[in-house]
Amino acid sequence: MSSAKRRSGLRIGKLVVIGVGLIGGSFSLALKKAGVVKRVAGVGRTKKNLDAAMRLGVIDEAHRDAATAVRNADLVLIGTPVGQMPEVMAEIAPALGPATVVTDGGSTKQNVIAYARRLLNAHFGRFVPSHPIAGTEHSGAAAAFPELYRDRNVIIVPQPETTPAAARLVRAAWEACGARVITLDARQHDQIFAAVSHLPHVVAFALVSMLAKRSDARTLLGFSGGGLHDTVRIAGSSPEMWRDICVANRDALLELLDDYTDELELARGAIENADGEALTDMFERARTARSRWLLKKRA
Amino acid sequence: MSSAKRRSGLRIGKLVVIGVGLIGGSFSLALKKAGVVKRVAGVGRTKKNLDAAMRLGVIDEAHRDAATAVRNADLVLIGTPVGQMPEVMAEIAPALGPATVVTDGGSTKQNVIAYARRLLNAHFGRFVPSHPIAGTEHSGAAAAFPELYRDRNVIIVPQPETTPAAARLVRAAWEACGARVITLDARQHDQIFAAVSHLPHVVAFALVSMLAKRSDARTLLGFSGGGLHDTVRIAGSSPEMWRDICVANRDALLELLDDYTDELELARGAIENADGEALTDMFERARTARSRWLLKKRA
Repeated sequence: MSSAKRRSGLRIGKLVVIGVGLIGGSFSLALKKAGVVKRVAGVGRTKKNLDAAMRLGVIDEAHRDAATAVRNADLVLIGTPVGQMPEVMAEIAPALGPATVVTDGGSTKQNVIAYARRLLNAHFGRFVPSHPIAGTEHSGAAAAFPELYRDRNVIIVPQPETTPAAARLVRAAWEACGARVITLDARQHDQIFAAVSHLPHVVAFALVSMLAKRSDARTLLGFSGGGLHDTVRIAGSSPEMWRDICVANRDALLELLDDYTDELELARGAIENADGEALTDMFERARTARSRWLLKKRA
Repeated sequence: MSSAKRRSGLRIGKLVVIGVGLIGGSFSLALKKAGVVKRVAGVGRTKKNLDAAMRLGVIDEAHRDAATAVRNADLVLIGTPVGQMPEVMAEIAPALGPATVVTDGGSTKQNVIAYARRLLNAHFGRFVPSHPIAGTEHSGAAAAFPELYRDRNVIIVPQPETTPAAARLVRAAWEACGARVITLDARQHDQIFAAVSHLPHVVAFALVSMLAKRSDARTLLGFSGGGLHDTVRIAGSSPEMWRDICVANRDALLELLDDYTDELELARGAIENADGEALTDMFERARTARSRWLLKKRA
């Protein structure tokens, strides 16, 4: 018996993962590895990805139809891009059993909660919004691996209607994946992740996109070093997923984008005026904040 | 006898490294490891860093005065931030022997060449401008390591006045460090590196600086994941070095900063209008360029 099973007594007879990508696939693999799930059904849009998921043992059965798949499920994880969640929720709502718990892996929470409140109807009390702070720039079932969530934070956002039993199950499942579970308010969540995740993705996508538009892009990028590579690693992330996140978290993101362009404008002015003091100020502030709050955390 | 020595017949009796940091210190360690240098003198501003460099075997003798140090040198590397180079050049010019070759590790080349032309006087023909495309976010002698340049590109920018013997020596030295040497025109160099290095640094510094100004910075950054960490790794770089680079390469950098803020403005408009197609376009362009021109290169 695994230690996760011993600790929580967690046993999931049937898990359904809707969207068998990096997030959903890794959730399945982690729970399988922890020995707390009996059977995993995967739901996907493309035969190719579902075939890969079956071949790699990420799922035990493959479905194209979510409503069929969720019958008799103990736990359902919606692991699609957030833009597809309303459709998925509308599809599964009539088929959900009275004890089935639903969670999601979406990077924005206010909009997902609004969808669920509207579309899951009576099942809303068994919906536990969650957001695992984990990912790589790869996507698809083949990118999934059981350690993705190990020592990572997972934010859960229980609502007033959420039943304690549902929240307990979802918390125990993420903990069985090796994650630390933190509870946040939905609005606070969206503001925090607009700053530390959504904005950095837009910054990186825009940087490579701008360089790629140039006629000398190939030559330029051929001279790049490790600095650019790391800076734009996340520009390899799923365009569809990030399109949905940007639109879903629009208000918080726009405010931060404005703050960021203001900061670039400050840098621009300092460079134009050869104002070394202003540049040193900005660069020192960045270096200090990084070493104080980003590096320490990682150690 | 090492293979570098066998291949080039390179032998440096006395190397002088002015600025014993990551760049200068690693140059020294690499040449020592290749067995092609007999003695290395280091010149620095702070006793603490010079003591560390002596203790770590990065240099064999420590000097505070560059003019004294360069006497009888075969090769001098100026490894200071570019803003200090005029002062260093003026200081060493009267003390340089008739056969001493000088190179530098500066990230901008047009300005460094202009300084050298004005300040090294008769020695200008033995100055070989160079720029190793290597670095980490760490600085100081303790950050130096002999493998820094292995399989990295080093750009050299010989001028019409540069003697073939001087260019040969500098090329052989970088090759002995394990680097590939590429010749570029100074203007072309500065434009390329404004795009693939200087702009990304400003982008990263400004991002962390903006977040650090917020009263909730500590909380925010505590929730960050690997995406932000990689995106802003280079914001840990030396503020002094990057201040100098930004000012030195001002024109090329300002043009690119404007292109970049235009691209962010496009992203902003698309997010505001929930224009999924425009966002997908931009993100796909970025992802494709990254996988085609950045990942392939690295493999």
